[in-house]
Amino acid sequence: MEYLSTDPVRLSEDLTVIEAIDQTQLPNKVSTIRLRTAEEIASAIKTLAVRGAPCIGVCAAYGIYVCAKRLEDRGEEVFWRELREDSELISTARPTAVNLSWAVKRMMALAEGSMGLDRTELIALLLNEARRIHEDDIATCRMISEFGLTLIHDGDSVITHCNAGALATSRYGTGLGPLLLGAERGFGFHAYVDETRPLLQGARLTAYELMNAGVDTTLICDNMASYVMAQGGISACMVGCDRVAANGDTANKIGTSGLAVLAKHYGVPFYVFCPFSTIDTSCKTGDDIEIEMRSGEELTEQFFEKRIAPRGVKCLDPAFDVTPAELITAIVTEKGIYYPPFDFGEDKSE
Amino acid sequence: MEYLSTDPVRLSEDLTVIEAIDQTQLPNKVSTIRLRTAEEIASAIKTLAVRGAPCIGVCAAYGIYVCAKRLEDRGEEVFWRELREDSELISTARPTAVNLSWAVKRMMALAEGSMGLDRTELIALLLNEARRIHEDDIATCRMISEFGLTLIHDGDSVITHCNAGALATSRYGTGLGPLLLGAERGFGFHAYVDETRPLLQGARLTAYELMNAGVDTTLICDNMASYVMAQGGISACMVGCDRVAANGDTANKIGTSGLAVLAKHYGVPFYVFCPFSTIDTSCKTGDDIEIEMRSGEELTEQFFEKRIAPRGVKCLDPAFDVTPAELITAIVTEKGIYYPPFDFGEDKSE
Repeated sequence: MEYLSTDPVRLSEDLTVIEAIDQTQLPNKVSTIRLRTAEEIASAIKTLAVRGAPCIGVCAAYGIYVCAKRLEDRGEEVFWRELREDSELISTARPTAVNLSWAVKRMMALAEGSMGLDRTELIALLLNEARRIHEDDIATCRMISEFGLTLIHDGDSVITHCNAGALATSRYGTGLGPLLLGAERGFGFHAYVDETRPLLQGARLTAYELMNAGVDTTLICDNMASYVMAQGGISACMVGCDRVAANGDTANKIGTSGLAVLAKHYGVPFYVFCPFSTIDTSCKTGDDIEIEMRSGEELTEQFFEKRIAPRGVKCLDPAFDVTPAELITAIVTEKGIYYPPFDFGEDKSE
Repeated sequence: MEYLSTDPVRLSEDLTVIEAIDQTQLPNKVSTIRLRTAEEIASAIKTLAVRGAPCIGVCAAYGIYVCAKRLEDRGEEVFWRELREDSELISTARPTAVNLSWAVKRMMALAEGSMGLDRTELIALLLNEARRIHEDDIATCRMISEFGLTLIHDGDSVITHCNAGALATSRYGTGLGPLLLGAERGFGFHAYVDETRPLLQGARLTAYELMNAGVDTTLICDNMASYVMAQGGISACMVGCDRVAANGDTANKIGTSGLAVLAKHYGVPFYVFCPFSTIDTSCKTGDDIEIEMRSGEELTEQFFEKRIAPRGVKCLDPAFDVTPAELITAIVTEKGIYYPPFDFGEDKSE
């Protein structure tokens, strides 16, 4: 098993290309893909080569810069028309994680607001802004991890779902941040990792990250979480998320809402971790969050040696579900820990 | 997709060998394996080539007969020593489903009670008893299906877990019986089929059986059941089981208890279907039921093109879990429908 030593998304040395870990190849191979165009960037996000809500935000930010850089020598009209088309393509690659459209909007607002500038200056400004989004994400993940670490103790066992670690974000991650930061400080945690069907981000990515960090890790199928909680001794469930509505309803990887129902039944605290920018107050409740539906081939063919279901079977394949606010014990952001009833207007910083 | 037209377990024409559908090959191939010895029978049960609580009971009953038949010409001492060894081997192939040890005990009690008989007569008696167990299972499944069909209505949508259809039993099945019998009568049901990790009995077997029967079938990952129930419109969850304790606690395929917790949370009735012989009153509660732990390779390698988790990852792989009685709306047997508080001494037949 190769160790992952870099951020999952970064700029090439000559600052013209995004270099990203191809997360579809993990844990068998750490390979890097190079993304030069809006089409390549959108495709990498759609196929989950680049994934994780904060990470696709960072990728999109660099993406707008890379696209602008490619268009550097074009005339005014072509430059703005193509940059807007590129930004639309990137922004709509996946609908559920708010970080994607948030990052594109932030980059494009800066660009449009700097229209009078010399082209070279404009592009330098975009590079700077993308780097700031990346650096902010690193600092944000660090703060989230620090806050999260106050919720668990040395020796605790937790259950995680999907992947909200360094691969999904920058450095420590969100949902895995407390475990990774704690491991660095010598805490002995035990993590049960939901494999997270259909795309197995838990088995492929989370188990890989936690083992590399020295966390005592046990892989389970998603449907074993009830068995594990029934045995007792689980201190918390910890997950990341893709979008939080104003009332605290939270969209995250499919299966999260089921885990939250189990946690409530078994009396286990259920913690959600995310950058504050993941809170989208334009969504009043979870009903306003669009859930991406994906191809059933993920259920029947992808990863398998042979088809594992009859040809022609209908599949339902929602990529996310919404966990209602009442099942969430706390939402942890870089601004602090929010408890129900959720009010994100209130500043929790100390 | 080939259509399955025979019982999953039967005797060869010359009455010396068990012929069984190799359920590990479905749905890609309908192939038959021939089981001649106790070792072969135990191995087929261990690897789940023959599976489903009632079905392994029938297989074990024929197994005792086949073993006795192979020993027909041996002297008294060898015959009884080897038959007892064979019965022990078959009986302990898997621990959780009570049907296995129940069938072996019933066959061996008959054999031991008929020790004085001529060998040919004894073997004829065992053949007759195994056939009766098989025929009883067919009649039992039919009755269970009839009772179950009173719990759902034309047009209903249900969620199933694992496989409790014809492949797991004889003809209609237990958990799928109401759907299969109803389909025969022209009822339009819709079934959401949990794929049932790690061995995918839902995707491979249940989807196959329901589609063949003309039931409108949608495959989902186990972790999507919460999403499906949250959308509303689900009339029931329907599952088979491997052992029921005196208080109604029920062992069934891993994931069943989680589905039951979800059903309670979303207000969906949760029905368990089984032959009355699955009720093991020697177990006071679910705590007395031994849960088979299996190899983690089922999580990381089996069915997959490549390993899907890091080498060396620890896996937890319980084959079953226990659903507490308080999460069960009703237990349906051939004697009738039992509601909580469960009292299996009471005869529900009409």
